[in-house]
Amino acid sequence: MSVLPAPTFDDIRAASARLERVAHRTPILTSRTADARTGATVFFKCENFQRMGAFKFRGAYNALAQFDATQRAAGVLTYSSGNHAQAIALSAQLAGIHATIIMPRDAPAAKVAATQEYGGEVVFYDRYTEDREAIGEHLARTRGMTLIPPYDHPHVIAGQGTAARELFDELGPLDLLFVCLGGGGLIAGSALAAAALSPECRVIGVEPEAGNDGQQSLARGEIVHIETPHTIADGAASTHLGRYTFALIQRLVEQIVTVSDVQLVETMRFFAQRMKMVVEPTGCLGAAALFNGLVPVQGKRVGVLVSGGNVDLARFGAFLA
Amino acid sequence: MSVLPAPTFDDIRAASARLERVAHRTPILTSRTADARTGATVFFKCENFQRMGAFKFRGAYNALAQFDATQRAAGVLTYSSGNHAQAIALSAQLAGIHATIIMPRDAPAAKVAATQEYGGEVVFYDRYTEDREAIGEHLARTRGMTLIPPYDHPHVIAGQGTAARELFDELGPLDLLFVCLGGGGLIAGSALAAAALSPECRVIGVEPEAGNDGQQSLARGEIVHIETPHTIADGAASTHLGRYTFALIQRLVEQIVTVSDVQLVETMRFFAQRMKMVVEPTGCLGAAALFNGLVPVQGKRVGVLVSGGNVDLARFGAFLA
Repeated sequence: MSVLPAPTFDDIRAASARLERVAHRTPILTSRTADARTGATVFFKCENFQRMGAFKFRGAYNALAQFDATQRAAGVLTYSSGNHAQAIALSAQLAGIHATIIMPRDAPAAKVAATQEYGGEVVFYDRYTEDREAIGEHLARTRGMTLIPPYDHPHVIAGQGTAARELFDELGPLDLLFVCLGGGGLIAGSALAAAALSPECRVIGVEPEAGNDGQQSLARGEIVHIETPHTIADGAASTHLGRYTFALIQRLVEQIVTVSDVQLVETMRFFAQRMKMVVEPTGCLGAAALFNGLVPVQGKRVGVLVSGGNVDLARFGAFLA
Repeated sequence: MSVLPAPTFDDIRAASARLERVAHRTPILTSRTADARTGATVFFKCENFQRMGAFKFRGAYNALAQFDATQRAAGVLTYSSGNHAQAIALSAQLAGIHATIIMPRDAPAAKVAATQEYGGEVVFYDRYTEDREAIGEHLARTRGMTLIPPYDHPHVIAGQGTAARELFDELGPLDLLFVCLGGGGLIAGSALAAAALSPECRVIGVEPEAGNDGQQSLARGEIVHIETPHTIADGAASTHLGRYTFALIQRLVEQIVTVSDVQLVETMRFFAQRMKMVVEPTGCLGAAALFNGLVPVQGKRVGVLVSGGNVDLARFGAFLA
């Protein structure tokens, strides 16, 4: 893997072609309430309406679509706290490839079930005591499977960049783009798309307060590792950026801000009440930063990537009650 | 009012022009799960993403946009169990007209609050003991205001028809179209659009089991009045069709079926879990009929009008839990 070159905007273009008629071209929604509250003109790119409920399908499918015959025969392996697992399982099913997924034992039940429904074989680990990357590399070596990690892979990053590419294609340049980050795959791809299509656009990363390793990494100029954070934003509960994602973030992302779990719940309620959308906690990160005034946006044209909508119904119901 | 001619497809075209850049052109979403479950190709026209959260904005705005100077000065009056109230209040605010809304005392709190936020003046009545139409006509006579009823008005029906028109414009002909009905404004307009743009399309009406006055009316060939039904589909808790809506339904609607409140809750959960949408109980009527096999749809191209998403968050949370 380490020999693959860093992704470029050409790779995003190629990914878009692979995803045509396979991924949804998700709608871009607006809300006069959001505009009134922020003083900006806000565009929400709704990846909660993507296949399997999150942007992760884009990167996973883009990676699997480039497998050769030997890789296809041996199968794909990955580790994931949730949405990437479903994305690999669904993409593998579509491509007729066997998928093995290493998942944390405390992953949301809906995500485990969905992964299995798509035909993925699930292997559990304890995310507070075991290292999923070591387990993954061991399985890949001993079984000959190709490991597609959840974010630190050029094909994954290029696939994730297609969402922002669609946003700029439809809207033209923007002043600001808010993107959530865990391992940084979505924001790295989004920043590549922005640099090519809207070079003046400032890309703002948003992390949960409890897990601000990206913010620390940007400040220190090196990848900072943290303990697994406890946050409701389970899709952003990663411990460190990747080498590919950090390099792109360092070069192209202006700033990383953080929001609290309380702010995420408020934003989830806003999406449900005002925009009639189910958005998972991680998917609320970008909008939470926007609504809480962490960056001045008055009079600006602002994009927000809404990353996904996979949340247990009972848990979602409790957040709304 | 009684002298206005019945609406035609030309009136829908004129309404579309009035609504351009004022109403949202709402997205049409698809779901592979819905297709797999039904054996059909299903298209959901998502009026829950319409301004103020429901299709009702289309009809209300289309009516107010045709007021003359005298009518504008005297103001608009209406009665509504909810969404039409907000639709009139918002349309009146946009047009700079005073709006008085007669609402049932047990209307959802969110709908009352939203109506007042849009600047509408709310007058309450008891929907189990008082006749809102009599109250409305009395106020209209004594104060000179123009009454725009929630469904039985040619301009309202024409406005509601613009949603189905957009559906056919984007998709071409369909085999079947499922539309909820209370007073029948949406289905009357939708059937007019279908007759013009997809003449072979069979339009199926869907009512709550507890309030099947439309079904009874179609069977008997005359407008049947019932007691106010007790159902979670508060937007379809009307007691009778109107003269304009019944005439169109009798001519253009093939069949009316009913679904239970339990089926509505199941459908609400489906929309939240699989399609990441908040849909109010009334908005689930069409899809509930589809999912419960009330009409054969195997191999067909099927449209479903999702009418709105205005439901109290706490109530919605309880339905999901």
